[in-house]
Amino acid sequence: MPDTPEPAPAPPAAISRRRLLGTAGATGAAGLAAGATGGTLFGTAHAGSGTTPLTSVGSTAHPFHGPHQAGITSPLQAHGHLIAYDLDPGTDRRAAAALLRRWSATAAALMAGRGEEADGTHMSLDAGPCALTLTFGFGAALFDTLGLTDQRPTALAPLPEFSNDALDRSRSDGELFVQIGADDALVALAALRAVRRAALGTATPRWQMTGFNRTPGATAHPMSQRNLMGQIDGTNNPLPGDDDFDRRIFVPADGDPPWMAGGSYAVVRRIRMLLDTWEDLPVADQERVIGRRKADGAPLGGDTETTPVDLTALDDAGNPVIPVNAHVRVSSPETNDGAAMLRRPFSYQDGLLPDGAPDAGLLFICWQADPLRGFVPVQRKLDRGDALSPFLRHEASGLFAVPGGAAEGEYVGQALFEG
Amino acid sequence: MPDTPEPAPAPPAAISRRRLLGTAGATGAAGLAAGATGGTLFGTAHAGSGTTPLTSVGSTAHPFHGPHQAGITSPLQAHGHLIAYDLDPGTDRRAAAALLRRWSATAAALMAGRGEEADGTHMSLDAGPCALTLTFGFGAALFDTLGLTDQRPTALAPLPEFSNDALDRSRSDGELFVQIGADDALVALAALRAVRRAALGTATPRWQMTGFNRTPGATAHPMSQRNLMGQIDGTNNPLPGDDDFDRRIFVPADGDPPWMAGGSYAVVRRIRMLLDTWEDLPVADQERVIGRRKADGAPLGGDTETTPVDLTALDDAGNPVIPVNAHVRVSSPETNDGAAMLRRPFSYQDGLLPDGAPDAGLLFICWQADPLRGFVPVQRKLDRGDALSPFLRHEASGLFAVPGGAAEGEYVGQALFEG
Repeated sequence: MPDTPEPAPAPPAAISRRRLLGTAGATGAAGLAAGATGGTLFGTAHAGSGTTPLTSVGSTAHPFHGPHQAGITSPLQAHGHLIAYDLDPGTDRRAAAALLRRWSATAAALMAGRGEEADGTHMSLDAGPCALTLTFGFGAALFDTLGLTDQRPTALAPLPEFSNDALDRSRSDGELFVQIGADDALVALAALRAVRRAALGTATPRWQMTGFNRTPGATAHPMSQRNLMGQIDGTNNPLPGDDDFDRRIFVPADGDPPWMAGGSYAVVRRIRMLLDTWEDLPVADQERVIGRRKADGAPLGGDTETTPVDLTALDDAGNPVIPVNAHVRVSSPETNDGAAMLRRPFSYQDGLLPDGAPDAGLLFICWQADPLRGFVPVQRKLDRGDALSPFLRHEASGLFAVPGGAAEGEYVGQALFEG
Repeated sequence: MPDTPEPAPAPPAAISRRRLLGTAGATGAAGLAAGATGGTLFGTAHAGSGTTPLTSVGSTAHPFHGPHQAGITSPLQAHGHLIAYDLDPGTDRRAAAALLRRWSATAAALMAGRGEEADGTHMSLDAGPCALTLTFGFGAALFDTLGLTDQRPTALAPLPEFSNDALDRSRSDGELFVQIGADDALVALAALRAVRRAALGTATPRWQMTGFNRTPGATAHPMSQRNLMGQIDGTNNPLPGDDDFDRRIFVPADGDPPWMAGGSYAVVRRIRMLLDTWEDLPVADQERVIGRRKADGAPLGGDTETTPVDLTALDDAGNPVIPVNAHVRVSSPETNDGAAMLRRPFSYQDGLLPDGAPDAGLLFICWQADPLRGFVPVQRKLDRGDALSPFLRHEASGLFAVPGGAAEGEYVGQALFEG
């Protein structure tokens, strides 16, 4: 099999294969440095070369334990899987708790790059953690099933119906939700398989979706993500450094219900894009639909992607520079009391529909402390007057309570099951 | 939108955004060097920073023009699409030739990173060429349709039926074949869309499959590819440096028919893996099915992946170290007069089948000068006695004549249409 293309030099933080496997001491990475780019490192001799470093793509690791679950503020990964599970008939609270304990152990091992511990296929052997994250959540139906109705958050009330929805219920909702992200497809798929194996006999997949984002290093501008309409996406996301970021995205320590402290709510929407129609539109028209320039994401009339959107600007003829129904205007935080959700999507491409149209679009995922202040008001406005709506089909929907992160020795959701 | 993970430093060969867009002269990349890894390069200011370098993931480019088409000996990419087209009713030879001319122009532009020239969505804006390749081939039915039956290669005779085949004819064969590979998902998908748009009114997709391989940099050992069974795959592939590589893989300059000079034949098989069953097997049993160790790909009884397979070795009890039906023995080149095909697959994962089993496996693609000396004899043997067969389902099949590369100013297949 031919070599993969020459990898980039290893950054100083690269970790070695031996360290990943835990077979070398703290000095195992000695001698690795940014300059160690040649020689056998990318040559043909690889058997036994246990201390060759991974590049940053492979070596990036996110901690499993912490106040919040990983996969919410973690940088977008190149590959993702979303899966909803329903509990098998007869599964009780204790069995469900045991599943979350197994899933947590699996996630902790895989996210640390110990794939050999938790993987029936071993397809992620050789690979580093590759920025893997696993994130677990609970759907509204779980609480009735387990006799925990009094613990169900009011924020899990069903989302309102929107006029543009054409939801496939078999691909919506679910009692348990798992989000997997990684910068390598085999690492992500190994995690998907490990999650599935850990659930055998307890829960069965209800639906499963697979998506992608840019490969790290594919662009000169690592910040820019483009969706499949070619539009730079996510510009106005709140940033973890913002003063009120935590308040907007995470349930506070004294939040309600108490077991959701440090948690967040995920809205998941499978949004198909009518790419055949969209691509027929001249770029200038596409830009007026969005309200931003295609090339650099700058708002119409603005200089750069990060130029604030000026909704009051008029052109020489006295018309709004940003059309009244442009997506950026209708969804603008300036008319929504500030963006109260963090968008963290994957694109998807599932081949062709029976009519030949591409089955492709966005696995929209947004995170918020309260869906009624985040997704719902924005989507209500978009539903009424967004010039982008005719090019979109909302085909599936889910709303999940994602508990806070697990402390060392604990598992995700422990406060619900044992609280 | 959060940053993607910290990219690796740019290698000296990195090319700049401005060079990609052709808006700067030869000095546009001045000042780029291996040391230019900090500052605004990966910071937040990216609008207008036109000279920031791509990493090797983004900047790797393969030439479109040459004696052979790209995508055969090119290193495996992280993302791939395989598409077969059938000509629309009434399409004549001239219209088909015009399609190949458009496809060739599209491929040349996209492979050079000029995505803005040939892309309705612009989803690959910002990105480098990312090792993109487009490869075009012809199925047996094309020649009758276009009145070129006398030009059909004898090598395009239908493959024999194998006892383990369960082929879906709607996902097999096709008049035209396109293979797309790239190290970035959006670059690959932009090419898929551009190919489709160029075919509108001339040809319609018959089937489409999407696959993946490792992300460059995900492993410490760039050589190793693992398939979804976790097995290192492709070890005994012929290498471009081998004496008889060209003879095995490419039709010679005086080959028959003359328009196939420099071409190759692609066998495409969608091979589903029964992963649920496979993963239930203990690793030691998996290794006896394959005949190689899971961890490093070494043949049983051998030291490293590249240790020659010793089919004569016996264990202390006098039994073959490599079982008589092990995959590596049955497919071994030592009993097949040398490997006369180059395997260059993608893995695939298309979600769950109605029974809950994973719809995942291998988009097996092999390249050879003559399928009757390459794929067919090996598959015949595997079909009879391979211990791996019970874990595999061949679900789709295609055989395509892939002409040689186009010279500057020419298009792929020109010697067929205008010869």
